[in-house]
Amino acid sequence: MALAVKALFFDVFGTLVDWRSSIAREAEALLKPKGLALDYPAFADAWRGEYQGAMEEVRAGRIAFCKLDVLHRRNLELTLKRFGVADLSEDDKRKFNLAWHRLDAWPDVARGLARLKRNYLLAPVSNGNISLMVDLARRNDFTWDAILGAEIAGDYKPKPRVYLAAAAAFDLGPQACMMVAAHSSDLAAAAALGLRTAHVARPNEHGPGRGEAAPTVAVDIAVKDLEDLAKRLEV
Amino acid sequence: MALAVKALFFDVFGTLVDWRSSIAREAEALLKPKGLALDYPAFADAWRGEYQGAMEEVRAGRIAFCKLDVLHRRNLELTLKRFGVADLSEDDKRKFNLAWHRLDAWPDVARGLARLKRNYLLAPVSNGNISLMVDLARRNDFTWDAILGAEIAGDYKPKPRVYLAAAAAFDLGPQACMMVAAHSSDLAAAAALGLRTAHVARPNEHGPGRGEAAPTVAVDIAVKDLEDLAKRLEV
Repeated sequence: MALAVKALFFDVFGTLVDWRSSIAREAEALLKPKGLALDYPAFADAWRGEYQGAMEEVRAGRIAFCKLDVLHRRNLELTLKRFGVADLSEDDKRKFNLAWHRLDAWPDVARGLARLKRNYLLAPVSNGNISLMVDLARRNDFTWDAILGAEIAGDYKPKPRVYLAAAAAFDLGPQACMMVAAHSSDLAAAAALGLRTAHVARPNEHGPGRGEAAPTVAVDIAVKDLEDLAKRLEV
Repeated sequence: MALAVKALFFDVFGTLVDWRSSIAREAEALLKPKGLALDYPAFADAWRGEYQGAMEEVRAGRIAFCKLDVLHRRNLELTLKRFGVADLSEDDKRKFNLAWHRLDAWPDVARGLARLKRNYLLAPVSNGNISLMVDLARRNDFTWDAILGAEIAGDYKPKPRVYLAAAAAFDLGPQACMMVAAHSSDLAAAAALGLRTAHVARPNEHGPGRGEAAPTVAVDIAVKDLEDLAKRLEV
């Protein structure tokens, strides 16, 4: 396998970064000084809860493709309303929305990517937009060969076009690419197109014990983190 | 200026890499063992000489956008014919065409980019395709935040869309971006859209004394190399 695979494609939210703790922290930092006492992890869950529905509008062709930042902003408005937060300024909401650019990585990621980069081309194939990926990379020392994913493809995963556009950008067939994700649905979509797949356990993505500790679909490799993946692919 | 500019966009062929010496070297490595004695620098000039005309087919809308690799291959066929080389195999031609993925950087570039990266977002905004940019980066230790340029925009410089798509990918207005190039025509197109501009002297791009030692249009900065640019932008 190590010989046949040339590029590794990474899911980002949940797989590389702990969005839930980071968004909860950012929500608290913004709202607490205003005298608002919220369940911040619940706020993070609710904001993230609007994610698939918003992208489905694009995937189904009901609205034109727009960056995930734009969908996040729409979802922020819905979530603020649901939590009864009514008086944020435009500037505060703009800043709040960029919380997704300030997510922290799981502790194994920077080291794992640096090691994987010795033998593979590396790119995020995320639904996040380019500027969001760039900010996360700067913050967390991710080392990419290119930023691929939804913005390059003009559509959102799990639409086939997103995986195929990434492989095409590297001049590779799907079988020379491996999708790395903590979500079985992402891996199933990639595998259906001929990509190889690696599942990363993130058992606490949605809170303690609420994440995929193991894949629910057939994958080529299942690993506990990116350092484990590097080790396995070096054999 | 240092405060207002957030991102630096780089032209690549000629500005960062010495395409002429590299292509001449690659042509010699492939053709000499076959008993062919050519003027290799002249071959490089002739191949490169087809570059603008091929892109103009796309810019004018006469053919659909395709990667520069595809145009390079078309131009390779024309150039081989002109030099009377008729018997290359498909595999040789495929390999020869990838010579553009094996260009060497001018000696100041890797150090200059590393230094500039401390303070600016960095991206190539080249007419070269993503895979070509990735291979040049790996070969020459270029350190990019993202690969932007023609393939992202679906058109070729100096069409406005290419510069504007790059700024939009970083969520920046044109005035927060600086185009860095050794070609006055590239800088003039960028400046017309509101980007800042830096001219890099590459007096030997087309052979000794045949390159732009100084800009022929108004620019914000003119520097002798990328280390000079880093110094100037740190002031």
